[in-house]
Amino acid sequence: MAPALVLATPAGITTLAAPEGAPVAVRTAARGGPELSGEGFRLVRAAATTVVVARTGAGLLYGLHSLLRNASALAEGEVLDEVHEPAQAIRMLDHWDNLVTHPVMGQVERGYSGGSLFWSEGRLREDLSRVEEYARLLASTGINRIAVNNVNVHAAEARLLTDGLEDVARLAEVFRRQAIRTHLSVSFAAPITVGGLGTADPLDEEVQRWWAQAAERVWARIPDFGGFVVKADSEGQPGPFAYGRDHADGANLLARAVAPHGGTVFWRAFVYDHRQDWRDRSTDRARAAHDHFAPLDGRFHDAVVLQVKHGPMDFQVREPVSPVIAAMPGTRLAVELQVTQEYTGQQKHVCYLGPMWSEVLRFPLWGEGGATVADVAGGRGPGARPGGVVAVSNAGDDEFWTGHPLAQANLYALGRLAWAPQLDPVAVLEEWIRLTFGPDEALAALLHRIMDGSWRTYEDYTAPLGVGFMVRPGHHYGPDVDGYEYTPWGTYHFADRDGIGVDRTRASGTGYAGQYPAPWREVYESPRTCPDELLLFFHHVPYGHVLSDGTTVVQHVYDTHFRGAQAAAELVGLWAGARGRVEERTWARVRDLLEEQARSAREWRDQLTTYFLRHSGVPDAHGRAISS
Amino acid sequence: MAPALVLATPAGITTLAAPEGAPVAVRTAARGGPELSGEGFRLVRAAATTVVVARTGAGLLYGLHSLLRNASALAEGEVLDEVHEPAQAIRMLDHWDNLVTHPVMGQVERGYSGGSLFWSEGRLREDLSRVEEYARLLASTGINRIAVNNVNVHAAEARLLTDGLEDVARLAEVFRRQAIRTHLSVSFAAPITVGGLGTADPLDEEVQRWWAQAAERVWARIPDFGGFVVKADSEGQPGPFAYGRDHADGANLLARAVAPHGGTVFWRAFVYDHRQDWRDRSTDRARAAHDHFAPLDGRFHDAVVLQVKHGPMDFQVREPVSPVIAAMPGTRLAVELQVTQEYTGQQKHVCYLGPMWSEVLRFPLWGEGGATVADVAGGRGPGARPGGVVAVSNAGDDEFWTGHPLAQANLYALGRLAWAPQLDPVAVLEEWIRLTFGPDEALAALLHRIMDGSWRTYEDYTAPLGVGFMVRPGHHYGPDVDGYEYTPWGTYHFADRDGIGVDRTRASGTGYAGQYPAPWREVYESPRTCPDELLLFFHHVPYGHVLSDGTTVVQHVYDTHFRGAQAAAELVGLWAGARGRVEERTWARVRDLLEEQARSAREWRDQLTTYFLRHSGVPDAHGRAISS
Repeated sequence: MAPALVLATPAGITTLAAPEGAPVAVRTAARGGPELSGEGFRLVRAAATTVVVARTGAGLLYGLHSLLRNASALAEGEVLDEVHEPAQAIRMLDHWDNLVTHPVMGQVERGYSGGSLFWSEGRLREDLSRVEEYARLLASTGINRIAVNNVNVHAAEARLLTDGLEDVARLAEVFRRQAIRTHLSVSFAAPITVGGLGTADPLDEEVQRWWAQAAERVWARIPDFGGFVVKADSEGQPGPFAYGRDHADGANLLARAVAPHGGTVFWRAFVYDHRQDWRDRSTDRARAAHDHFAPLDGRFHDAVVLQVKHGPMDFQVREPVSPVIAAMPGTRLAVELQVTQEYTGQQKHVCYLGPMWSEVLRFPLWGEGGATVADVAGGRGPGARPGGVVAVSNAGDDEFWTGHPLAQANLYALGRLAWAPQLDPVAVLEEWIRLTFGPDEALAALLHRIMDGSWRTYEDYTAPLGVGFMVRPGHHYGPDVDGYEYTPWGTYHFADRDGIGVDRTRASGTGYAGQYPAPWREVYESPRTCPDELLLFFHHVPYGHVLSDGTTVVQHVYDTHFRGAQAAAELVGLWAGARGRVEERTWARVRDLLEEQARSAREWRDQLTTYFLRHSGVPDAHGRAISS
Repeated sequence: MAPALVLATPAGITTLAAPEGAPVAVRTAARGGPELSGEGFRLVRAAATTVVVARTGAGLLYGLHSLLRNASALAEGEVLDEVHEPAQAIRMLDHWDNLVTHPVMGQVERGYSGGSLFWSEGRLREDLSRVEEYARLLASTGINRIAVNNVNVHAAEARLLTDGLEDVARLAEVFRRQAIRTHLSVSFAAPITVGGLGTADPLDEEVQRWWAQAAERVWARIPDFGGFVVKADSEGQPGPFAYGRDHADGANLLARAVAPHGGTVFWRAFVYDHRQDWRDRSTDRARAAHDHFAPLDGRFHDAVVLQVKHGPMDFQVREPVSPVIAAMPGTRLAVELQVTQEYTGQQKHVCYLGPMWSEVLRFPLWGEGGATVADVAGGRGPGARPGGVVAVSNAGDDEFWTGHPLAQANLYALGRLAWAPQLDPVAVLEEWIRLTFGPDEALAALLHRIMDGSWRTYEDYTAPLGVGFMVRPGHHYGPDVDGYEYTPWGTYHFADRDGIGVDRTRASGTGYAGQYPAPWREVYESPRTCPDELLLFFHHVPYGHVLSDGTTVVQHVYDTHFRGAQAAAELVGLWAGARGRVEERTWARVRDLLEEQARSAREWRDQLTTYFLRHSGVPDAHGRAISS
């Protein structure tokens, strides 16, 4: 007899066809077993029957996707009784999609996968069949919320709140079927630009009324609408500072409007001075979010989730964890990750980000054994206020969804790690490989060789020892060591003929290290205890400074760049072995991109090694050729 | 009795109203006097009558403009007998105007004066009244040829040869009234893209026939059409290399088509590898034009004018004169200058370029006393083959024509120096000031203080000792010392912790210095004899290298940048004294721009001094504050 799977719904027991023809049982939690949340599920297997138990349709959906990715739960004779609950109640994707193509940023800001899945020429697409597929894809990873327009809200997007509401409702309908709630990014200035008021002051009663009415309109049309995402007082976006108010005033204004409807305000903590004077070495962009927000802890409304980038800067390939996350026990916090590879190869380079996110989510904010980033976001840290995980999508209307076919793994891993941060990211990758390419052992082994260490390889040939922003200004692709060095963006490395790095110590630097609780404030304070991979983030050191492995800083740059470029170059040859094992179009797309990656990695290697040689005058210890 | 001016035309003597009510006489040369060219004129004054003598309407036109700018020729009692002949028979302006706005380059490529005077949304403007004014303005400076579309020819512009011919004819009609002949920039690939042929090979008979027929069509409609401007095999434009042909083959193809109609082909010598490997220090973009074109000397058709940029790179604030100009006695050469301030402040900075052009045009190519650049261009050098002066216009539909009101002086000076290169550029500026602002002595003195030395001031705070391209890539505004250092554009300075500059000597460098005839090949070869202002163009020297005035290279950078930024800062205060002496709108526009110039000059100073301090480690000898 084939293994059986039974689905129980409130309406009774239904037997469905399952993979390999097995019957499936799903039932509501009313039938007993441990307490389940609305999204949790229980898998029980005895003899030849697997039962999925859940309290809601969403729980059943996740339970079924769980079985689809783990067919062994259906294996005959296997005994099973597992409860699955999401670590994060909020598992959200933000789309930086513009309704109309922006002259500089294109249609999808920092998008590398074609146009928007949703919008075309200012309106919702007529044909939403790909959105339906996308919603199912997201649900299979565990995503339960989506924001459908760019956080930089231009004129066309601002009108989604009003004229465009029918478009949003159509989208919400599609996502609702996959248990995903829809959100809008809104402009803090909307009362002026859309509402025609003379102010957007959060303490103004007319403004408060305007937001309350706007929320009423939206929820009247879309009863399960999720809420608003706001980028305020950031990189030119309007915000409460214009009225002498702080970010708690601003966020709470919107929170009071959405709370009666069960909505949430996602208020971004990405606030810093983007017109900094590069001559000023005391101002430190890394400090900005903590300086702005930590003093406001406890003042945010319950309907506000403060959305904090995982690092203090901006999605670099290597950053320390943001000190804001440990500093606001009285505030709901969501950690913001970036699936779209703005600074990590723009979906031209293979860069599997699961290991980075895993490091971030499992980072012990108060030292080994203490609460992690995922704990705080999940409401299991001090203060016990649940937020979640929010990430910027990498999907577009490209035929492979993500430009680089292998970048799909990042979208998958994001959802899985948001649900279960304790998962081994390589095991998550294994899931994606099996689900995508089937049971080809040799292909899976090959993909692991290409992808498992790809984030560290990318770090090797781009960003040494925690230095970021050595990229071409504007588009952020490819190397330009001094590209941001004399700009207003606050992103400097201060290289000179003697050394490099940013002194962020309390003793002699910007004091940023002091924004961490113990033990990190001490660990980061000294170059002797600071982890090598963050050395130049926290310290300005001579090129001859010796790292924990005995090499010098400059030799480390040479070694990692030669190693990384070599690893990138080898990928093309490895991938030749996949030909015939994947669809030819997929294979060819990956091949073309791997060639670009190899070229680009060489360019990174050569520019970085030349720059460090020209500045330090120190030749490579191994005598490899470096242009001078 | 008022001074009298009599105009004699072939139809007889006419008396006209002249400035100050004086009668004017103009007559044809048939009435005697020295031999005049078609554009020359003679001014004769005896007693109370001034007579303008010319052979043609153009000559009379230039004679009258000459009187307008020099009212003293009408002064009673003044005795006068002057013959004026243009030094250059070709005095041409190229417009880099696109018919449709280019997504990156805008409507006018490298234009800083608004949109095109001619084109709007792919068609000629309906209202040509400003073009009529512009044509009169150009005629008053002596310009006699104009190319009305960008040398980078896109799809819309390519069709000017066919569908758009009526538009060109309307323009030609306006310019004709001011003795200016109209030209088109054409694409070498037009036989394919416009003509539908399978090739553009210059040795293909069908291609030859296509160009002959295209020329016939154009001249049938516009009998005094001037000819074609071609940018071939340059920065991505198509050219003869694709067919294994050389540039003489390419240029002569078009020349044979236009010659029967009295037309001219302006073939640009701006050919270089724009995909150079920055690691390769042996390839030298400065060599490229000479390497490509000098071997072709003698092979170009008489209807070809080879259009050579005045320096070997690309309109930098300081370059040596192009060695091509001395190397091709068997070829008609035009010197190309850039009135639009791409690398000289983009019409945000005051930068009067007359002194630079004067240096270029009067440069003795074979040493003191020998033939100059202007001589070669005018057909008075070895080979005696006349070309001319061609320049890129700085005019647009801005209300002041040139964005910065004071940038009009460059447009004026270009025409005047093309006609008479021996003129003192400050005297030319004086003409412009009087013609523009009238007889206000104090204002004139103020403008001279602001403008006379403005090119050297701009050089002071931007480009030290012949280094170029320390600008932001792409738009070319503002400093970025390493911006082009690791790019494919061939524009490097090779700064490291020890020194800076490009070794272009025969002895140890790229050999570029050897492209010059004596004495310059020897003068430039040694850092001891190389002029300081070109030192880093020809030599890589240590920061401590001592210049002719006893300062070191690094100290020179500090001194010139502090001096230049200080001079720029003082302009704002000076200009305050002009208030009430010029129209308020003009005054305010200049004031705003001077403030931007002061800000930008500080930025240049600070980035350059910081960069040199970080690299050299040498502090300023005068203890001024430099960020490190």
